[in-house]
Amino acid sequence: MLKKDRAGVTFPEGFLAAGIHSGIKKKGALDLGLLVSEKEALIVGMFTVNKMKAPPVQISQRRARRGVAIGIIVNSGNANACTGDQGVADALLLTEKVGHYMGCSAQKILPASTGVIGKPLPMFSILKALPALSEKLSAKGNADFSKAIMTTDTYPKSTQKEVLIGGEVVKIGGSAKGVGMIHPNMATMLVFMTTDAAIEKDALRMSLHQVVEDQFHTLSVDGDTSTNDSVYLLANQLAKNPVITKGSEYHREFTQALMEVASELRRLLLKDAEGATKFLHLVIQGARSKGDAKKVASTIAKSLLVKTAFYGEDVNWGRIMAAIGNAGVPVRVEKVSVALGDVALVDHGVGLGESQEEKAMEILKKSDITVTVHLGMGQMTAEYWTTDLSYEYVRINAGYKGRS
Amino acid sequence: MLKKDRAGVTFPEGFLAAGIHSGIKKKGALDLGLLVSEKEALIVGMFTVNKMKAPPVQISQRRARRGVAIGIIVNSGNANACTGDQGVADALLLTEKVGHYMGCSAQKILPASTGVIGKPLPMFSILKALPALSEKLSAKGNADFSKAIMTTDTYPKSTQKEVLIGGEVVKIGGSAKGVGMIHPNMATMLVFMTTDAAIEKDALRMSLHQVVEDQFHTLSVDGDTSTNDSVYLLANQLAKNPVITKGSEYHREFTQALMEVASELRRLLLKDAEGATKFLHLVIQGARSKGDAKKVASTIAKSLLVKTAFYGEDVNWGRIMAAIGNAGVPVRVEKVSVALGDVALVDHGVGLGESQEEKAMEILKKSDITVTVHLGMGQMTAEYWTTDLSYEYVRINAGYKGRS
Repeated sequence: MLKKDRAGVTFPEGFLAAGIHSGIKKKGALDLGLLVSEKEALIVGMFTVNKMKAPPVQISQRRARRGVAIGIIVNSGNANACTGDQGVADALLLTEKVGHYMGCSAQKILPASTGVIGKPLPMFSILKALPALSEKLSAKGNADFSKAIMTTDTYPKSTQKEVLIGGEVVKIGGSAKGVGMIHPNMATMLVFMTTDAAIEKDALRMSLHQVVEDQFHTLSVDGDTSTNDSVYLLANQLAKNPVITKGSEYHREFTQALMEVASELRRLLLKDAEGATKFLHLVIQGARSKGDAKKVASTIAKSLLVKTAFYGEDVNWGRIMAAIGNAGVPVRVEKVSVALGDVALVDHGVGLGESQEEKAMEILKKSDITVTVHLGMGQMTAEYWTTDLSYEYVRINAGYKGRS
Repeated sequence: MLKKDRAGVTFPEGFLAAGIHSGIKKKGALDLGLLVSEKEALIVGMFTVNKMKAPPVQISQRRARRGVAIGIIVNSGNANACTGDQGVADALLLTEKVGHYMGCSAQKILPASTGVIGKPLPMFSILKALPALSEKLSAKGNADFSKAIMTTDTYPKSTQKEVLIGGEVVKIGGSAKGVGMIHPNMATMLVFMTTDAAIEKDALRMSLHQVVEDQFHTLSVDGDTSTNDSVYLLANQLAKNPVITKGSEYHREFTQALMEVASELRRLLLKDAEGATKFLHLVIQGARSKGDAKKVASTIAKSLLVKTAFYGEDVNWGRIMAAIGNAGVPVRVEKVSVALGDVALVDHGVGLGESQEEKAMEILKKSDITVTVHLGMGQMTAEYWTTDLSYEYVRINAGYKGRS
């Protein structure tokens, strides 16, 4: 089935991918992935704001700024972070060798890594695997590529979508790993998206920013950012659509389709969050600004007390109120209302009593729960996705040692 | 033994306290405390910055601003938070009745509450208990008072200290509850400190600010602030010391003694932290500013990944590096060094390898662990205290329901 084979990052025309075991992970697990475009593509990226950026992130960020690329070489099992000058030299050499096999300059190959911090890359094994990896490149390579980027992910994550732009088919695909999947030492969220759309660079960049802001920045499992978080978007212009320019109706349509791809990747990331038993959809309403609404959402999402209460299926709206009060934005207790699902618990700062709390206990038994907070301060809203905090999260992140 | 009986908040001259079971908690546990000074005292306080301040906190804050008080009425088991106008009326009525029994204006009685959020105070039971509580007031009352303020604390916490100021004995005492002891619904840190020092109001306020900043603001168990956090300091001027004025040598001596009392209370709070198995002393060096150093410390202290790694006794310095990079202050990976105890793990951003990590595993087996981070950016330092994150924390805070 052509349709099935061409999936994820290789769904759009002209993209090839592969994954291989190079020897970083144990037991033959795939740990080295390559994604390339047959035709030079525009590339835009967004990278971690963590100050401890890993060497491959620094290099990718610089190369993404130049705006054109042939491909991305990515390994799992080793983050190549806190590896000093050696880490920089290793990442540069790796892209040089891949460029050699692809017949392009190293500048057009971007490196990405995820896994343990502070260990040098096993360069000998990786370099030795490159010829075989290059030979495996195929339009059916998404399955292996998606596996090769996994760390503690329990399943590979990819999705694709078609959209008509000016009557022509444009394809978008994506593959992702991570979020709260931090065992054994440190991993990260990596997202690779591809499209064959004909699109201008500025329009592409704006689409990515909007999608990252609305999708990946509204997701929190444990509130930490890491050294390697990266989102890439490649556009190789092979589709026959009229060129998408910034601010046009076509641009709106393209961004909407990209948003749906990202939304599905976010859903897959959230559902695979370490040890999660509850998936919380936070809806903040009545904020003075979008920024205020997001701060309130992210403070609730990061509160250990809120997260453990959901794990315990405890109707503990006081912890939600305390988290709202802790968000660093102006709120007034007498204006705040809170509901779980369709059950109101707090009306203008006052609890609605035990009969409502009993109704809410039914909502808490579900695995998908919507928490609605109305701040009563304005008209702005925000949405956010997070999980509960379970024994299992502690077990996974305690590193399987000693106590667990 | 007079010396033993006069302890904690009733250690200084002229302070009386009592604790009683009024019916808020089950099984006859003490839940209502009263602390008074025989002579009108200066009072200063510091209160939660959480926007959802409980009614008693709002009232106490207003009354502390007036600067004089006879006493504090405090209940546990119910935070009187998110209780609306009823909560305000209840707290006001309570102080009016206590004022009546003490023969003073309600303005000179400050209310404090800790416990469940969102339930009205059982005023009938509380008011009925006031006469007996007043009659129990005694210079030996610290033991009952310290118990009456407990929520999930596993032991009462108090301490005392004598200091010579101008050749005269000045006494300082304190009692505290809380920190990360949040079951069943929400509690908080409450600290009551007393002194018989003769001291000016401005000097007293400055001493409290300094002590709170250096001691209680350097303690984080789960990173949440609550609706009721409060620190009170009463000074009744009964000691014969020369009056302590702001900026004097006596002031420095007094602040140092108060610092020691607060430091011991902080230690008692930390050691009783919910489910903690490791007590982490974070030492941040080489920061550009004190503020930067504190932000780095508090970001490490709040990182779930760092906390679970310590619980698992996992030599996971990558998580510490990632937390440093996540603190929102300028740092450069190539300048950062990290040590556990006396074992260096990271030197100028690069890991020191497996032999050092093996040595660090011995340090990680201990329950008290010092983590030293040198940022290499300047000369400023900060210290911070926190704990690991254990199964037990999740169990306690999941509310004992469903899963646990």
